[in-house]
Amino acid sequence: MKHIIKAAEMREFALKMRRARGKQPKTIGFVPTMGALHEGHMSLIEAAKRENNRVIVSIFVNPAQFAANEDLNEYPRNLKADIKKLKQAKAVTCLFTPGEAEMYPEGYASYVRVENEMTKVLCGASRPEHFKGVTTIVAKLLNIINPDRMYLGQKDLQQAVILKKMAKELNYQAEVKICPTVRGKDGLALSSRNGYLTPEQRNSAPALYKALKVAESMVELGERDAQSVIKEIRRKLKEENVEAEYVEAVDPGTMLKKEKISGKTAILAAVFVGKTRLIDNTIIDMDEWNAVKKENKEDAL
Amino acid sequence: MKHIIKAAEMREFALKMRRARGKQPKTIGFVPTMGALHEGHMSLIEAAKRENNRVIVSIFVNPAQFAANEDLNEYPRNLKADIKKLKQAKAVTCLFTPGEAEMYPEGYASYVRVENEMTKVLCGASRPEHFKGVTTIVAKLLNIINPDRMYLGQKDLQQAVILKKMAKELNYQAEVKICPTVRGKDGLALSSRNGYLTPEQRNSAPALYKALKVAESMVELGERDAQSVIKEIRRKLKEENVEAEYVEAVDPGTMLKKEKISGKTAILAAVFVGKTRLIDNTIIDMDEWNAVKKENKEDAL
Repeated sequence: MKHIIKAAEMREFALKMRRARGKQPKTIGFVPTMGALHEGHMSLIEAAKRENNRVIVSIFVNPAQFAANEDLNEYPRNLKADIKKLKQAKAVTCLFTPGEAEMYPEGYASYVRVENEMTKVLCGASRPEHFKGVTTIVAKLLNIINPDRMYLGQKDLQQAVILKKMAKELNYQAEVKICPTVRGKDGLALSSRNGYLTPEQRNSAPALYKALKVAESMVELGERDAQSVIKEIRRKLKEENVEAEYVEAVDPGTMLKKEKISGKTAILAAVFVGKTRLIDNTIIDMDEWNAVKKENKEDAL
Repeated sequence: MKHIIKAAEMREFALKMRRARGKQPKTIGFVPTMGALHEGHMSLIEAAKRENNRVIVSIFVNPAQFAANEDLNEYPRNLKADIKKLKQAKAVTCLFTPGEAEMYPEGYASYVRVENEMTKVLCGASRPEHFKGVTTIVAKLLNIINPDRMYLGQKDLQQAVILKKMAKELNYQAEVKICPTVRGKDGLALSSRNGYLTPEQRNSAPALYKALKVAESMVELGERDAQSVIKEIRRKLKEENVEAEYVEAVDPGTMLKKEKISGKTAILAAVFVGKTRLIDNTIIDMDEWNAVKKENKEDAL
């Protein structure tokens, strides 16, 4: 596994792969991460490996997506452990870990935004500049690497949908693939932030997943009113002393609220377990309800 | 000369050029335009031809850079005449004329902005969303074509400097080259908007260029106070019944005002000749003053 730090070298390396003189050019699958890699990230890398000749992973804790009061400084960083995991996976051609000074030099002012409701609701309501930071860093990485496909996790559904829209609308070559959330045995969605939890908090954190499962069951049993489902999720969370920031039922393509559970509906929630903010979601596809549940298929959108 | 309308076809065509199996890959020079081509555009194409194996020109009257009260509908469009000029030049490999519905489909919301003073002053003051439209369309075109170099005219200096910053900060591969303004015999900077002028207005329009030349002479004779130079430009314009929107002396790298003419200073002006808004500028390089004037060299920044 090659390890590159400079953007110019990364660009050249990716370009050479594509050019592949005299041979069939290689396709590149790209997995952008903030490190602290877990099985969720590894599943994205596996998906990239299945569908491309080469896999590039980036690790960059992107300051532009953290607000001043957020956990930028506390965010887990362990490059050594990450590199070990990536090497063991034997799937990654190249790791790219750019430096902050190169990505955001002094006087930096160029940003990419999806300027509609999609970025203002849900996580965008409490983190107003968060998605601007996300779309900007991903645009930069796409410009350096120019991959054929980019792999994102459904756990961060709103982020993934925003990036999919951004990549398509700004005419990036890369196709955005949204892959299923990877969970612990108790259902808790894997997240680098789970490491913040005390053992006690770790025990109550799966309440989020359980509440979403209850919502799915309600719909399966015939409930179609979004507010009734949301109310039940909130009740369940409260029961387990988990504080809800938001619980919403939305159209997974636009992130706009739905009153009825119909067609494709995403139910998303953000909660606080102690001081740790966790998010999770489920996509209910009324048309393919059974098929989706059976296959747990990739790119559920 | 190939003529492509669809973005996907343009991407594929540019990609094939770069890949050039078994051969040295081809470099691509790109000239983005809004059509109504004149000698200014042709000089950019010539520069692109000199420095690259292949030249791609785009023609797209970009609605995102026109405000509701501006001249989007009146903006000159004559694709037949443009194609004739491009064919005669024998320098263009491919013309790309995307459609509005493909570039900005319904619900379009992804924008690229340079979010600092640079886009708020000068033309940005009277055209607050103008540069957002410019940076967005150019980002889209760069993503489709992925050229090695992009050629812009110094006549639109603020636009060129903003795009140079955007391309660099968002890590685009393309190097942005700013080429000298091409002028009529009487000094009027060539512009597609010159076609709006009545014969009488066309006679007074060179007042803008003349006023900038007077400014250069003042500096040559020792004047270093920006306000004195600006005052004289305004006086000259008034003398010729040309209404000034702005006249400013700025740092050409940042577009921030300068009080003293020192180092590199750009003097920019926007004027109204009748209802037609025209812009022009001159860059005074105190260090290379004589060299710049002698060579009229490319990429004066």
